[in-house]
Amino acid sequence: MKIALMNEFSQASKNAAVLQELQAVGAEQQHSIFNVGMSDDNDHRLTYIHLGIMAGILLNTKAVDFVVSGCGTGQGALMSLNAHPGVTCGYCIDPADAFLFAQINNGNALALPFAKGFGWGAELNIRYIFEKAFSGEKGQGYPPERKESQVTNAGILNQVKQAMGKDFLQGLQSLDQELVTTAVGGERFQTCFLENAQQCPLKDYVRSIIAA
Amino acid sequence: MKIALMNEFSQASKNAAVLQELQAVGAEQQHSIFNVGMSDDNDHRLTYIHLGIMAGILLNTKAVDFVVSGCGTGQGALMSLNAHPGVTCGYCIDPADAFLFAQINNGNALALPFAKGFGWGAELNIRYIFEKAFSGEKGQGYPPERKESQVTNAGILNQVKQAMGKDFLQGLQSLDQELVTTAVGGERFQTCFLENAQQCPLKDYVRSIIAA
Amino acid sequence: MKIALMNEFSQASKNAAVLQELQAVGAEQQHSIFNVGMSDDNDHRLTYIHLGIMAGILLNTKAVDFVVSGCGTGQGALMSLNAHPGVTCGYCIDPADAFLFAQINNGNALALPFAKGFGWGAELNIRYIFEKAFSGEKGQGYPPERKESQVTNAGILNQVKQAMGKDFLQGLQSLDQELVTTAVGGERFQTCFLENAQQCPLKDYVRSIIAA
Amino acid sequence: MKIALMNEFSQASKNAAVLQELQAVGAEQQHSIFNVGMSDDNDHRLTYIHLGIMAGILLNTKAVDFVVSGCGTGQGALMSLNAHPGVTCGYCIDPADAFLFAQINNGNALALPFAKGFGWGAELNIRYIFEKAFSGEKGQGYPPERKESQVTNAGILNQVKQAMGKDFLQGLQSLDQELVTTAVGGERFQTCFLENAQQCPLKDYVRSIIAA
Repeated sequence: MKIALMNEFSQASKNAAVLQELQAVGAEQQHSIFNVGMSDDNDHRLTYIHLGIMAGILLNTKAVDFVVSGCGTGQGALMSLNAHPGVTCGYCIDPADAFLFAQINNGNALALPFAKGFGWGAELNIRYIFEKAFSGEKGQGYPPERKESQVTNAGILNQVKQAMGKDFLQGLQSLDQELVTTAVGGERFQTCFLENAQQCPLKDYVRSIIAA
Repeated sequence: MKIALMNEFSQASKNAAVLQELQAVGAEQQHSIFNVGMSDDNDHRLTYIHLGIMAGILLNTKAVDFVVSGCGTGQGALMSLNAHPGVTCGYCIDPADAFLFAQINNGNALALPFAKGFGWGAELNIRYIFEKAFSGEKGQGYPPERKESQVTNAGILNQVKQAMGKDFLQGLQSLDQELVTTAVGGERFQTCFLENAQQCPLKDYVRSIIAA
Repeated sequence: MKIALMNEFSQASKNAAVLQELQAVGAEQQHSIFNVGMSDDNDHRLTYIHLGIMAGILLNTKAVDFVVSGCGTGQGALMSLNAHPGVTCGYCIDPADAFLFAQINNGNALALPFAKGFGWGAELNIRYIFEKAFSGEKGQGYPPERKESQVTNAGILNQVKQAMGKDFLQGLQSLDQELVTTAVGGERFQTCFLENAQQCPLKDYVRSIIAA
Repeated sequence: MKIALMNEFSQASKNAAVLQELQAVGAEQQHSIFNVGMSDDNDHRLTYIHLGIMAGILLNTKAVDFVVSGCGTGQGALMSLNAHPGVTCGYCIDPADAFLFAQINNGNALALPFAKGFGWGAELNIRYIFEKAFSGEKGQGYPPERKESQVTNAGILNQVKQAMGKDFLQGLQSLDQELVTTAVGGERFQTCFLENAQQCPLKDYVRSIIAA
């Protein structure tokens, strides 16, 4: 899988530690990691609002397969990512959450708390979460005998999101364009996007904003 | 506040215990509690998909001010509720989560895990969560000196949801209508809705489905 | 109740924040708080080993009724306190733990993790823990119908500790006396002890070490 | 390592599930597992008091290297095990706890909550805890640069326990002998003990009670 990590301003200083764990697990499990948010306090400034837009763009263009996001409590990132069609973002505080979300909900994003409960040894918990979030085949249900109903509901959720939301490109165009401009303004985000996004009108639109 | 509790099929058997704690806290803090989902395993069957539609209807018509939802891990309810415009749903496993969500995000719904981690004494944790979720003035920021930035971002999130989503009524009409019919099919839901929803085209539409 | 808070060197910098929450809850519930460990990084140096000795002295002389201790993960303090006769120390990470420990085990000490999991907003969790640890009548069992068996076992545990341990004074005299000297070396500890310990040979012994 | 699992009466019904996870991890990591407590509700009845005595006997005779225990909240088992010389028992609710306890405290027992917080999917958390508790070399400190101080304190704790406690055999003889008789009364316990305990006066004493 291609996995993007994105941090916002309030916890930008945690990026290096989280990235290190994600890269370690990615190396073990053969995933590619893209660090597309803030790398430290002085980086291009993003809030959890921007993380949602970034996740929507990367997932809807298939530039990446999965997004790891978060903020202080993780709740802002959680709601912001889930505001976008094509993004199904869970919340995770321990490795069992990560495994269950992968098996039952089979979503494509996680929001993590990078300040609340994030004390000494938090890098261990983060690592164990990543170990269980990204290993093995997803969407197998848990327990296995409930797979059918769980897969059905996950599918219906995608339909509901599609019905309730505008087309994602149309939605992006309805947003305050300054939000989009800032969301796509980071260099590492642009590299990840431009090199990996599938060709589609959404890509053209985002590219035009990047070029502006 | 008017607070709705809604349980889906997989954890319907927990409804009585959760309701008891919510009513106890509601009595202490002078909130009205509406039990609008499944009350036991034999009740009108709802999944987390329906909970999202129900929450969207109750909150967008101001029938209630806050929704307490959940499912096995809480993740399905979480994503389902957040799929709807006008619903900002957090995830909560401890009382501090509840307080921080109220102060920082000032959302109008919570999704709780009613199976995962829900062991012996879970009713205590649920009660303490309710105590901290619903007391005091919300949206004051935490810590207080970060209030301005937190309130700003919460406001922008509402705008983003509005921009990305269709008008809620239009969205509901785009859904598989069987989902809506089932969502509004419970008797306690209907009573809560019909007695408390503000008059608006959305109310007319839901009423027409109920009447059908 | 008279409640002593004791911090060791690795988390001495957390003392002020923890003390503030304990004092706030103490004021609400009419408990007296004694801050007998390290107040900051430059204070008289104590390890979790010393905390155990201090707790043993304060509880066995009835200088205080309850001890709140901890260290980085809380495990060192936990085992150190439980090494002493007359000290029954639980471990607590959330408010429900605190309530259940008070009702079921009716111990006289808690060990808390002051680094692991102690992130942003941890002062809220600590406060809620204190709220539930010290309110209401203890030892009532949970659920109430299990009270008899729970109280019986708590009583047997005290007998077991007494049978397995030496007399506490004799035990203290068997220790490396430098440990005892350091344990009783802090000024606030001495004030709490000298003013509140009941007259007994143990008090005489500790006083002689303080005076030496 | 030789690892003993011991369950008491209140959570005896969880034994099969916990044992399965422990055996799975044991098989992966080449540990031998001994199920020495209650295997179901109808087995030889044990309370957390007995678990402490059993752990003391197995660890002090080197019949096993590590004990996994627990009860409803885990607190009773925790305090009961720590009441015995030669037993250093930590408390564990997540995999990071397990890893940190192994590295920092290098104890020889864990107490787990088998009811509180033990909901759906708890077997996953238990398994992940075992994975981190028993892999790799223990006592390496965390972070590594704090190893020296952490190892030193763990060593001092053992000395303190020895100083404060009676000799373990003498302690056992001071106990209500009915407690000891019940503690050693289970068939699987006896097999584990008789086959693995090192020859010593303590073994002779326990064997005499078993034979009585």
